Amino acid sequence: MNDRSPPDGVDKFAIFRRLESQVRSYSRSFPVVFSTARGAQLFARDGTAYLDFLMGCSSLNYGHNPPELKAALAEYIASDGITHGLDLYNEAKESFLREFHETILKPRQLDYVVQFPGPTGANAVEAALKLARKITGRPNIIAFTNGFHGVSLGALSCTGSRHHRAAAGQLLGGVSRLPYDGYLGSGVDTADYLDRLLSDPSSGIDAPAAVIVETVQGEGGLNVAGTAWLRKLAAIAHGHGALLIVDDIQAGVGRTDAFFSFEAAGLHPDIVTMAKSISGYGLPMALVLIDRKLDRWEPGEHNGTFRGNCHAFITARAALEHFWRTDSFAASVREKGNLLKNRLDQIVQKYDASRASVKGRGMMRGIDLKSGEVAGQVISTAFQKGLIVETAGPHDEVVKCLPPLVIGEDQLSQGLDILEDAVDCVIGNPASTAALRGGS
Amino acid sequence: MNDRSPPDGVDKFAIFRRLESQVRSYSRSFPVVFSTARGAQLFARDGTAYLDFLMGCSSLNYGHNPPELKAALAEYIASDGITHGLDLYNEAKESFLREFHETILKPRQLDYVVQFPGPTGANAVEAALKLARKITGRPNIIAFTNGFHGVSLGALSCTGSRHHRAAAGQLLGGVSRLPYDGYLGSGVDTADYLDRLLSDPSSGIDAPAAVIVETVQGEGGLNVAGTAWLRKLAAIAHGHGALLIVDDIQAGVGRTDAFFSFEAAGLHPDIVTMAKSISGYGLPMALVLIDRKLDRWEPGEHNGTFRGNCHAFITARAALEHFWRTDSFAASVREKGNLLKNRLDQIVQKYDASRASVKGRGMMRGIDLKSGEVAGQVISTAFQKGLIVETAGPHDEVVKCLPPLVIGEDQLSQGLDILEDAVDCVIGNPASTAALRGGS
Amino acid sequence: MNDRSPPDGVDKFAIFRRLESQVRSYSRSFPVVFSTARGAQLFARDGTAYLDFLMGCSSLNYGHNPPELKAALAEYIASDGITHGLDLYNEAKESFLREFHETILKPRQLDYVVQFPGPTGANAVEAALKLARKITGRPNIIAFTNGFHGVSLGALSCTGSRHHRAAAGQLLGGVSRLPYDGYLGSGVDTADYLDRLLSDPSSGIDAPAAVIVETVQGEGGLNVAGTAWLRKLAAIAHGHGALLIVDDIQAGVGRTDAFFSFEAAGLHPDIVTMAKSISGYGLPMALVLIDRKLDRWEPGEHNGTFRGNCHAFITARAALEHFWRTDSFAASVREKGNLLKNRLDQIVQKYDASRASVKGRGMMRGIDLKSGEVAGQVISTAFQKGLIVETAGPHDEVVKCLPPLVIGEDQLSQGLDILEDAVDCVIGNPASTAALRGGS
Amino acid sequence: MNDRSPPDGVDKFAIFRRLESQVRSYSRSFPVVFSTARGAQLFARDGTAYLDFLMGCSSLNYGHNPPELKAALAEYIASDGITHGLDLYNEAKESFLREFHETILKPRQLDYVVQFPGPTGANAVEAALKLARKITGRPNIIAFTNGFHGVSLGALSCTGSRHHRAAAGQLLGGVSRLPYDGYLGSGVDTADYLDRLLSDPSSGIDAPAAVIVETVQGEGGLNVAGTAWLRKLAAIAHGHGALLIVDDIQAGVGRTDAFFSFEAAGLHPDIVTMAKSISGYGLPMALVLIDRKLDRWEPGEHNGTFRGNCHAFITARAALEHFWRTDSFAASVREKGNLLKNRLDQIVQKYDASRASVKGRGMMRGIDLKSGEVAGQVISTAFQKGLIVETAGPHDEVVKCLPPLVIGEDQLSQGLDILEDAVDCVIGNPASTAALRGGS
Repeated sequence: MNDRSPPDGVDKFAIFRRLESQVRSYSRSFPVVFSTARGAQLFARDGTAYLDFLMGCSSLNYGHNPPELKAALAEYIASDGITHGLDLYNEAKESFLREFHETILKPRQLDYVVQFPGPTGANAVEAALKLARKITGRPNIIAFTNGFHGVSLGALSCTGSRHHRAAAGQLLGGVSRLPYDGYLGSGVDTADYLDRLLSDPSSGIDAPAAVIVETVQGEGGLNVAGTAWLRKLAAIAHGHGALLIVDDIQAGVGRTDAFFSFEAAGLHPDIVTMAKSISGYGLPMALVLIDRKLDRWEPGEHNGTFRGNCHAFITARAALEHFWRTDSFAASVREKGNLLKNRLDQIVQKYDASRASVKGRGMMRGIDLKSGEVAGQVISTAFQKGLIVETAGPHDEVVKCLPPLVIGEDQLSQGLDILEDAVDCVIGNPASTAALRGGS
Repeated sequence: MNDRSPPDGVDKFAIFRRLESQVRSYSRSFPVVFSTARGAQLFARDGTAYLDFLMGCSSLNYGHNPPELKAALAEYIASDGITHGLDLYNEAKESFLREFHETILKPRQLDYVVQFPGPTGANAVEAALKLARKITGRPNIIAFTNGFHGVSLGALSCTGSRHHRAAAGQLLGGVSRLPYDGYLGSGVDTADYLDRLLSDPSSGIDAPAAVIVETVQGEGGLNVAGTAWLRKLAAIAHGHGALLIVDDIQAGVGRTDAFFSFEAAGLHPDIVTMAKSISGYGLPMALVLIDRKLDRWEPGEHNGTFRGNCHAFITARAALEHFWRTDSFAASVREKGNLLKNRLDQIVQKYDASRASVKGRGMMRGIDLKSGEVAGQVISTAFQKGLIVETAGPHDEVVKCLPPLVIGEDQLSQGLDILEDAVDCVIGNPASTAALRGGS
Repeated sequence: MNDRSPPDGVDKFAIFRRLESQVRSYSRSFPVVFSTARGAQLFARDGTAYLDFLMGCSSLNYGHNPPELKAALAEYIASDGITHGLDLYNEAKESFLREFHETILKPRQLDYVVQFPGPTGANAVEAALKLARKITGRPNIIAFTNGFHGVSLGALSCTGSRHHRAAAGQLLGGVSRLPYDGYLGSGVDTADYLDRLLSDPSSGIDAPAAVIVETVQGEGGLNVAGTAWLRKLAAIAHGHGALLIVDDIQAGVGRTDAFFSFEAAGLHPDIVTMAKSISGYGLPMALVLIDRKLDRWEPGEHNGTFRGNCHAFITARAALEHFWRTDSFAASVREKGNLLKNRLDQIVQKYDASRASVKGRGMMRGIDLKSGEVAGQVISTAFQKGLIVETAGPHDEVVKCLPPLVIGEDQLSQGLDILEDAVDCVIGNPASTAALRGGS
Repeated sequence: MNDRSPPDGVDKFAIFRRLESQVRSYSRSFPVVFSTARGAQLFARDGTAYLDFLMGCSSLNYGHNPPELKAALAEYIASDGITHGLDLYNEAKESFLREFHETILKPRQLDYVVQFPGPTGANAVEAALKLARKITGRPNIIAFTNGFHGVSLGALSCTGSRHHRAAAGQLLGGVSRLPYDGYLGSGVDTADYLDRLLSDPSSGIDAPAAVIVETVQGEGGLNVAGTAWLRKLAAIAHGHGALLIVDDIQAGVGRTDAFFSFEAAGLHPDIVTMAKSISGYGLPMALVLIDRKLDRWEPGEHNGTFRGNCHAFITARAALEHFWRTDSFAASVREKGNLLKNRLDQIVQKYDASRASVKGRGMMRGIDLKSGEVAGQVISTAFQKGLIVETAGPHDEVVKCLPPLVIGEDQLSQGLDILEDAVDCVIGNPASTAALRGGS
């Protein structure tokens, strides 16, 4: 993962190279200095436009700087609306809560109260884990292979990635790891395995406070949990006195068609974590939705300085108002999701199933290229052709498409054309493939 | 900590009470719905103005919505500047990095690289702890009595508060607790004790990766570490192969006169964590400053979705440009800090030292009222008189004043007048004091 | 698990009930005060003889007070041989080491050095885990469902039993739990699952220091690992840089025919833990066998006061000399193991496979009665008829026969006759079965 | 710590060097193969007699092979008394319990029940910690600087020695370390510090399940806790809802005059751990004494194979009967303790206090030589003159005398003569001292 050098002798990235920590990552795949952004496009300093199928890892579901949200935010700032108010009562939060209740929770008959943790997904996960442990008095958590829940210490314990886990420099405890749906092949129902472990008093798996699960594993490589498996999982958790936590940070806010990714399975999780696209504008914001009966927090038990980011409340409210008061947005996303699926299917049909296959759900889909090296070449090639798209999966072997949900069909097609070109270029060309094999 | 009921039958807080989690905290002390804010003032929905000596717990050192920063932000938004860019190279970050280097680091001869973790102080602490453990291969961390470093699991292990620790629902490990400067009375140098423990191969204190310390413990009750103690601490840490991490989240960004709180002691910490006022506008942002030689991160090892909050980069840059390019701002803060100290001294001189004393440094000072109940009454009384000020300390016994650094002397005096009234009202009135004692 | 009252009004157990902790356990199943023992028999204070198929949980493989060992011990004591010598060089240890090397290790081409930890199996496991972690620098250990490795904190982390784990009163960490051979049914090779987890960089299972396994899970219910599975397990461990630890505490010392239980699979574990029958006389003694190349201990790193129990060295040496210098003992055990298997098969054949089946290997076999209640009635009935035999398994549902390896065929038959009677009496009698079901 | 080579070319220790793990330790200081032992003497294979002031680290308080105990054991073995009975009721245990109750507990008005854990001190500590955590529901334990409680994982967490802790290869958790009496100098009452930490809700020290303490730290270097400090410690523990565990493994059974080391301070600990000399004969045995009201164990929660070592019950009972039914033994130990103290005082008076001072209590006393190198030379010299004595303390700087309590005054004097010679030889000789200094 080295920075790619600029074509000429000038170091356009000198400031970053000199002053920013080596920990930077995305900038290594897309070595351009960006300046502005609108809708599905990012613009480089030199004016070059890029289609963005990364979209802040699903943090910009409504595109860059959506005008309705931008207007609301600009007005709020102009009027000296409170920017930072800790968790004092304020109108920005009030209007968000009201809108979230009326537009999202009430129609879905979800009786949640809302916690505003520190404005990151990891912080929402930390809060959810704490609350589950506190309520049940059990320290153990069930998390799944290839799950990703953040990198602060509590969240990291649930995250599967060895790369991230190793950075902790200490033993990560309090989590028992179970195979996700499909991990042991189609013949094994891994939910049944969990049930067996929890029913067996000498299995060595301690009774858990909660099961934490993503319905689609975004970072894990677009693994999709089946509806029946999710329902069984919920029943097993509850049968053993554990809470069900759905981490909807990446898959929620319409990314899989419905507002929540678990609506299709008809789940009613005990706790839901949200972040990324909830503000709608890419602003830091996170939520923990807690079943009203489980709101056992004492005042201030889980706190944080930025847990009331009023700018985010404003854009989040505007987003709900604009996109979710009717069903039309969700319907359009469904259509685009199908379109995405069909195009990806066409792309992979050119190749043997051992070299490329389609994964994912809704508007989070991609191509499993079975090799991190191949996938890396594909995204590099796509970038040169004007498309920003990233990889996911244990070996970075899945090219993951996260186009904005508001993308027009023409831009969607244009982006997928580039992706197809890039795939063909990398694996469709026998010579380059041979070279790859020789080099690996 | 119950909500105080509104004076009439109408529930002005119905939305919050019904839809927000019980975990909310500050709103319980200040039961008003706020709407706008400017400078040192917060305005309630009904137009009532409050002087704000809480200032987002030191997140708004330049006051609410400072005009120079507001203008820069509004312009950036209007021009479709990138809002969310993960950690892609972008102009907002670049200009912040350049300004931070030129205005802050270079004049102070601090050779740090900058990491942008998730935009919360806790996340900065998590990153700092990880890096220290990773570099040294040692899992142990030295933290201090009454320290506060955040509530995500790794940071929480370093935090002293039992209230917050208990919420974890599990054993917090990897931290050895040492007494802060002065904790064992003036006769004991607690740094010497640390040195003894680390030099003694059967002390039971494992060799640490790092010592993490606040130069002034904000949440811990405005405890101030002496300059000599801090220097000795740094020497001891280095002498035993450990890093020195200064958590400058609350005390930094001018709160104690200089930009960094450790400048007075002439420290050069290995790692510095920053958040709260670094964006200057109350926007979520956090930094980890890492001695260049210790930047051993691998790409992406500690990541997060919101680690590039461009709006915050814009206001942060504007703040540095506006307030820190010359010394005049710091000089004015020093003056105001003295003014604050003098007024607080006057207030407490009316009372026996066993009932009230002054603590703190710079513009983070307060009155130790030796009783959480008394201090609670004081802030409640002050609030009724138009001043927002909070308590700190193990028993919430210290009234902590964090006025904006840009406050005018008239407003500062006005706020302190209210505080004096409140103190006199609560402890100056023999009857009320007797009642308090009877009731406790 | 209440004490069964004695038939008459006299409390024969008053001393125990008054002065011994409630933690006592076996005495609750067999409420008799025992006084002497010889071979396969225990004698109660009143002279009643009991056949012993419990044998100190496989600690008395050569029977009670075997005469050859008794003579050697008596002579040693009479001559003022050193009883306790910490780990000073002494002749008792020397002669044991020489005999163990010549008679056990050398013929099997096993190049182990011997560590004498504290004289309990748990201590041997603690030492083995430490050494594996120290060598590899990895804190994680792979242990299996239904495994039992002792109850001190490190060993307990590897033990599956919730009953024992819960007593720790704290989170047990550092262990990833995998399904034992057969745990997911015959269609799933659980070794392959382990391989997948260790090969998948985001499985969430950290690279392990060691895999610890029993070839037959004694406490876990006589689960037998297949030869192919064990070999694959060893290959997987080594392929991923982990050590293979075979816990041979219960299954070793001839219990499964050969001296080591892993000989049948042709394994060469990196570390082997031994205890129970190694002294041959029921005296506390434990060994850790360490592949010579892995003997990376520094002097005294794992120590303990009783790590040189000279009396046990004397009897252990005598046992090796008497029973293992030729193959005849092992051959006779093989024959008796078959006899045991055949008789148990006959017993269960009377019943539907859903109610009784045979489990185990060698001379550690038993009947799975599919219900802890039924099994409890069987051992209680057997005891009344003069046989001491215990249950094992997650639900105490397996009647586990551990007759002494030196038992005569007549006594073996006699014991099995009693067991058969007891089984028939409990599950063969429709009335009692109905009562059981009604009562459960 | 290399083995010292034998004077001639023959390797007398070949068996050990080839077959025993490098972890062996004491044999490195005393490179002789021992064969028999009587009273205060150990005899090497070649007949050389050594006075033993190590005595199995206080495991042989009645000397080697005391005749009364030897006779009882021989008779028990001859009569086929049960050797190993798990925790079945048996006469050996019954008679021990009765004697222990009548002779030890009842006269001291101690209402303890007795738990027989695995027969090592570490196992007793593991059981004590578990029980305290289970009863209180608190995972934290307070342990002290320089404490030694064993090396299995739970006990090791309480042990201070870095050498032993490092071997764990993982983070040791669940213990907060406090300074032992005197650790911060005579001006600081470290019990007050503990009280402050437990009273301060943001001290960062979680409410503990128990405080575990040795009244004299044997391995830690003969540090003696004052009577007032111990009493205060007990009051603080109880005041904060924590149990007091006295680890009397090394200091108990008469080593500090009374049977229990805490009798002088008039303590009534909630839990007492015993091992080492409790069997009286050097046989593995350990006890946990539990205040009757705190015996909250469920059956079998803490178990182990060798928790009923009948041979040890026999010798333990005989020891109590022989030595403790009257006060005369304790009185004689007091006298000898004084004699020991006086002689040691005489030895050190020859030297500056910065080079040698006396430490300890009762019959566990020694000379602090302020340097591990010097102390090592002293014990090596003493060994050459026929005395076995070991070092203790963080730097192995204390020569620790643990003569048998039954030693005759002539042998005691003889041993101390040798010690004096050795000290004089090493530090009394200016030339050798200079050499030492030059070489260090």
